Order: sequence, then structure tokens, then C-alpha cells
Amino acid sequence: MLNFEYHVPTKIIFGKDTHRLTGRTIAEYGYKKVLLHYGGGSIKQNGIYDDITASLHDAGIQYVELGGVSPNPKLSLVKEGIALCRQEQVELVLAVGGGSAIDSAKLIAVGAANEGDPWDFSIRKRTPAAALPVGTVLTISAAGSEMSLSCVITNEDGLLKRGYNTPFNRPLFAICNPALTYTVNKFQTGCGIVDMMMHTLERYFSDSPDTPLTDRMAEGLLASVVEAGTIAINNPYDYDARANLMWASSLSHSDLTGLGRDVSMPCHQMEHEISGMYDRVAHGAGLSVLWPAWAKYVYRFAPARFAGYAVRVWGYKNDDGDDLKAAAFGIEATENFFSGIDMPTRFSHLGIGAEKFDEMAEKCTYWGTRTLPGYVVLGKKEIMDVFELAK
Amino acid sequence: MLNFEYHVPTKIIFGKDTHRLTGRTIAEYGYKKVLLHYGGGSIKQNGIYDDITASLHDAGIQYVELGGVSPNPKLSLVKEGIALCRQEQVELVLAVGGGSAIDSAKLIAVGAANEGDPWDFSIRKRTPAAALPVGTVLTISAAGSEMSLSCVITNEDGLLKRGYNTPFNRPLFAICNPALTYTVNKFQTGCGIVDMMMHTLERYFSDSPDTPLTDRMAEGLLASVVEAGTIAINNPYDYDARANLMWASSLSHSDLTGLGRDVSMPCHQMEHEISGMYDRVAHGAGLSVLWPAWAKYVYRFAPARFAGYAVRVWGYKNDDGDDLKAAAFGIEATENFFSGIDMPTRFSHLGIGAEKFDEMAEKCTYWGTRTLPGYVVLGKKEIMDVFELAK
Repeated sequence: MLNFEYHVPTKIIFGKDTHRLTGRTIAEYGYKKVLLHYGGGSIKQNGIYDDITASLHDAGIQYVELGGVSPNPKLSLVKEGIALCRQEQVELVLAVGGGSAIDSAKLIAVGAANEGDPWDFSIRKRTPAAALPVGTVLTISAAGSEMSLSCVITNEDGLLKRGYNTPFNRPLFAICNPALTYTVNKFQTGCGIVDMMMHTLERYFSDSPDTPLTDRMAEGLLASVVEAGTIAINNPYDYDARANLMWASSLSHSDLTGLGRDVSMPCHQMEHEISGMYDRVAHGAGLSVLWPAWAKYVYRFAPARFAGYAVRVWGYKNDDGDDLKAAAFGIEATENFFSGIDMPTRFSHLGIGAEKFDEMAEKCTYWGTRTLPGYVVLGKKEIMDVFELAK
Repeated sequence: MLNFEYHVPTKIIFGKDTHRLTGRTIAEYGYKKVLLHYGGGSIKQNGIYDDITASLHDAGIQYVELGGVSPNPKLSLVKEGIALCRQEQVELVLAVGGGSAIDSAKLIAVGAANEGDPWDFSIRKRTPAAALPVGTVLTISAAGSEMSLSCVITNEDGLLKRGYNTPFNRPLFAICNPALTYTVNKFQTGCGIVDMMMHTLERYFSDSPDTPLTDRMAEGLLASVVEAGTIAINNPYDYDARANLMWASSLSHSDLTGLGRDVSMPCHQMEHEISGMYDRVAHGAGLSVLWPAWAKYVYRFAPARFAGYAVRVWGYKNDDGDDLKAAAFGIEATENFFSGIDMPTRFSHLGIGAEKFDEMAEKCTYWGTRTLPGYVVLGKKEIMDVFELAK
């Protein structure tokens, strides 16, 4: 087991009706003025906006608003948010939404507390020295940004999608009411399921020796997401299934399921090039295409690991001890599960041909200055190979 | 799934040689003077004391010392510690040891920051309004106090052992070097294994509906403790097994394995009366005696739950779907595992007869003013029944 630090100070307030505690929670921390940051406005249709602003009002919290966060959140809106925070002397950034709204809020919070271009942090040119606190009310179970230290933003100039990690990115609190996800549609629910599985799968299949405790909990999380995901896709109003998915999404990117292991996330790195290039591609959909291809490309180099996954997550009985066969079963089961919840598993399902593979692979290696580690080290050629397998 | 709050801000610094970071870690928080609190002095024989004091010295941290914490830590020493903290203007209490040293440090930290009798907090007569920060260097994998909000202290006056919870009890940081547990002897290692399993088992078998994500992770933790425990008992210098146990012990009492469930811990409540009455009985040994008896007393009221435990933790193939048979298998497997690592599973193994059962049961109900909730509500009669089964 590798040495690790684990520090997730985010306070989770989980369950029915908890979004009505937003104002009171902020008041308990002593903050009085917040930036209310959200996406395309669905929260205004479904009543969440009204509930939260009422809760802020009741607790005597002032707020200014910035809506309009898009999937693959953009740097330009972040800059608007930073200006607004400074102008209005905002004390806390409150993101209402999923990973996009939260990631946008994170870079606003860092940008507002540090001079200079916030993109410098995204490209790891500078390290933040401070940040405003971020609070979240989660409305989509997927990215796990509500407990994570990561933040992924897209710079429209060059369509570059870049993530960076800092302890300042851990939200102060996360309010998680599973009932707020009842109205998330089937496709977005599917994207979330893939995304939360991937946060654990990428850690689980990093090139480190077995870590039994971390591994068993990771497998447990994955198995429960498969079970709850199947239920939620078919019955979106099943509270327990939605609750299971919501808590799994938070835990899955909280570090817990990879402790003691290398964490390099090659599929995430490759996917950033897809949804960076094709803004219409949801992150979860890109991952759903990439992981089966990546797994088929590398599993021969870690057959026992992939076999264990097949046995403990997918119930495969590896009676003949043929790890390669077991491994292939587990990959196929995963791909079938993704297909079964109507997620794409090929570039063609996304309507994407091979014409940009070269450019995406080039960008993913930062123009030849990095490779992606793992069972197989991925340079430009290998990334192209994975893309080809996913065609 | 029940609503829950989850807030574990403790920073974990885990791995080889991490205890040498103690001084630097404290300095990073800006503290300059600590109370170094520890047990019977084994840390002076095995070099841990020297390493830690050297680390404090190198980082410019002043310290005063209070050793002598015993198993079932005592109120009188806590009071000494409080006086010392006030006299020496200590800023942080640094516990070096296992659950006893940490629990003692917690009540010192609370007592030093609040006027009046610290026992008031233990008996829940008052709630603390503040506390000094507590840091820990873990040397025994068992109690999980390094991440928990609980604190159990024994008042010599009446041999009362009482626990209370407060967010102030969460340590600021926990330094966890598995190699420091190499020299923990077989019996203490066994007590730790039982204790860490029990923190999850009691949550897992609380009377709440299934919580699949929490349940799968709990089962994963238990299975990995069984695996690593078996290795560590036979090869105490196996780093990975010791590491697995150490991290499991911390997680198991961190709340994670019971989220969304009722947590009432009836076996812990009953065990406090045993080790409160018989100071020589280690907490883990008392639990090892009680859990099999408790499980046999209640499993008929939750056969499916116990059957699932048998299948997923102990690999039972419940092919005929006879949940009662499966449940009995899981309980027997647990008892056999405890026996197999040389832990007692009957009062007689502890050299304890029935003569104090009545008094212990009476005390456990707080003289008839409470019952213990669960599949079967335990009043004095039922507690006596469990004790009889454990004879």
C-alpha cells in the first residue's frame, strides 16, 4: 500500500428536504453574502430555485446571482463570476447544480481570492494561496465535485479542457437531497452512472499492487451503483436508488476508493479531449465510449486484477481459473451495462468519426510533452490505438 | 436510507515513516506547545518516543509529558492532564498510542477548554462549547478513536465506563504508520481485530432497512479485515496486512460504514459494563464474548440480513435459500474466526462467572432508565439472557 494523505473536511448534509437547510447552514458558518451560481435555469422550473432562495431569505443571507453554467463549464463565465464576487464583496460561492456548476464555482472562488488570470491555475502554472469557501446544493449525481479537490474548466480559446487539484477546491459543505434528482432525465442519469463508476474504476485499475481494503470498498461501491443505477433508470422516482447513486457519486471522487494506489485517470485525460473538442459530448458519454476500449487495450497486462473485478463486481465464477477469460467477461459485462442504460460505447454512437483522432491524441499528450501512465504507458500512438478500438 | 450528516475533517497522514512528520505537521498548524500523552511506556522501549520527541524538537515544538494512560482510561489521569494543560498553557494534546491514549487526550482537550467537572461531559450532563485540538500518532489498530467523535472514559468512583460523542472529539490529524504496530502482541492484535470489526458489525446489524452502498462497503471492510487479520496474526511484520488493519480500524469507527442507518451499538453498551467492572478485561475481548451471543439471540428477527452477511463476508453459498441456516453459518463463522485468532468467546474464557451478571445488567440499563434498541429491544431481562448465552 502506498503512503497517502486523506483529508476531506467537507460537511455532508444528506437526505430528504435537506436543501431547505441551505440558508441556515450558511448562517451557522457566519457568512452573510453569497453568489448563487447555477446552470441553464431548470432549477427555476422545478422549484429548487424558489426553495433555496426562500431558505436564504429566511436565514438573512443576501445573494447575487450568476446563472448560465453550461456542460463543460467555460472560462468566460468564471471570469464574470470573479468580477461579480469582487464587485459585490461576496463571502461564499453557492453552487446549485452538478459538477459543471460546482467546478465553475470552484474556479470563481479561487479566482476571486487571487489576482491574475484564473486559467493559470487550470494549467497548473500557479498554485492558489487562498479561496472563498464554496457551498453546494447537489442536483445531479455524477461528477463527485461536491467532495473532491478537482476542478475542470474549458477555455473557449483553443477548446482546451483542463483539470487541476488543490485542497482549496474541497467544498465547505454539500447538501445532498436525492429527491432533487428525480427529474434528471434518463440520458443524464446514465451519464452520471458512468461518471461515478469511472471515478472508482480509474483508481481501481491504476498500476499499483492490490490494496485489499480499498479494493473491497471500491468493488462494493461499483456493485451498488450497478444495482441502484438499473433501478433508477427504470424508476426515476425510487428514492433509495437515487440516494444510493447520490452518495456513491460523492464518495467515488472523494479519494476513498483509491487510497494507497496510484491515481492517474488515463480515460479522464483522453475524454477531456473529446468533450473539449466536441462541446455537445457529455463527459459521461465520452467515458462510456473510452473505458471499454481502454480496458480491452490493457487487460492482458493485469489479467488477475481484471479477473477479480469480474468475480467481485459482476458475479463471474472463475471456476477454471482462466483469468484472461474472466477479465474479458468483466469488461464485456461493463460494456453491456453501459449499453443497457442506453449509453454510447463507440465513437460512432456519438456521431464522431476518426477525422480528429490525431488532433485529440496530440493535444492529450500536451503536444508530445507527456504520456499517460498505467498498465500500458499511453503516448500519442497508443492513444490513437485506443481511439481506433472505440471507433 | 435515513438522512445523515457526515463530517470527518481529520487529516490522515498514512504510511511508512510518517510518525517522523509529527513535529512538522503540528508546526504547519501554527501550534508551538503540546501535551505529549501516552500509555505505559512501551513507546520508550521501542524507539517511538525518541523518534517523536526528536521530530518535535526539530520543528521547534515545546512539549510537556503525561504518560501512564491505562487500558480503560481513567478519569483521575484526565484531571491531571487538564491541570497540566492549564498550568503549562498547552495548545494541542498529542496522543501517542491507541484508543485509550486518544480517548484520554480527548477528554483532557475538552476539559481544559471548559470549566467544571469533565465527567459531566461523559455522562452527557453538559455539552462542550470548545476544545483544544487533539493530534494523534497511532500505535494500535483497534478503536478507531483517531477519526471518531466518541470518547470512552472510566470513572474509578463506581467503576462506571461511559462514552459520549461531540464533533469536538474528532482529532485534527492522525498520523498512521502501520509499522509502529509490528510489535503489538498477538492478543492485543486480536483484540484490535475484534474491536474494528465490531464498529462495523454493530452499525451493519442495526434495525434499519438495507442501505446497499453502505452495506457493500461495510461487507468489503469486514472481509478485508478477516483476510488481513489472519495474515497479521501469523506474520506480525507483514506491512500490507498491518496497513490494511490500521486503515480499517480508522474507517470502521469514522461513521462511514453506518451512514443512512440507525447506530445504537448494543454490544458496546453491554461490554462497557464488563470492562468497567473487570478492569483486566480488554474491550475487544469483551466484545468477542458478547457478539456471538447477541447475534444468536436476535438473528431470527432479521434472517435475511444475517444471511446476506454470511454470503458476502463469509462466502456462504445460500443455494437452498434457507436464510436461517445461512444466518447461523455466518454467526458461527464469525465466532470461529474469533476463536481462531485466540480471542475468548465465552465469559468462562475470561474467568468470569455469572455472579455479577445481575449487577452489570442493572448498570447497563442505567438502573432501569433505558433499554438498548435493535432487532430485539434489550432491557435487564434480555441483557441477562445474552449474558447467559455467553456463559
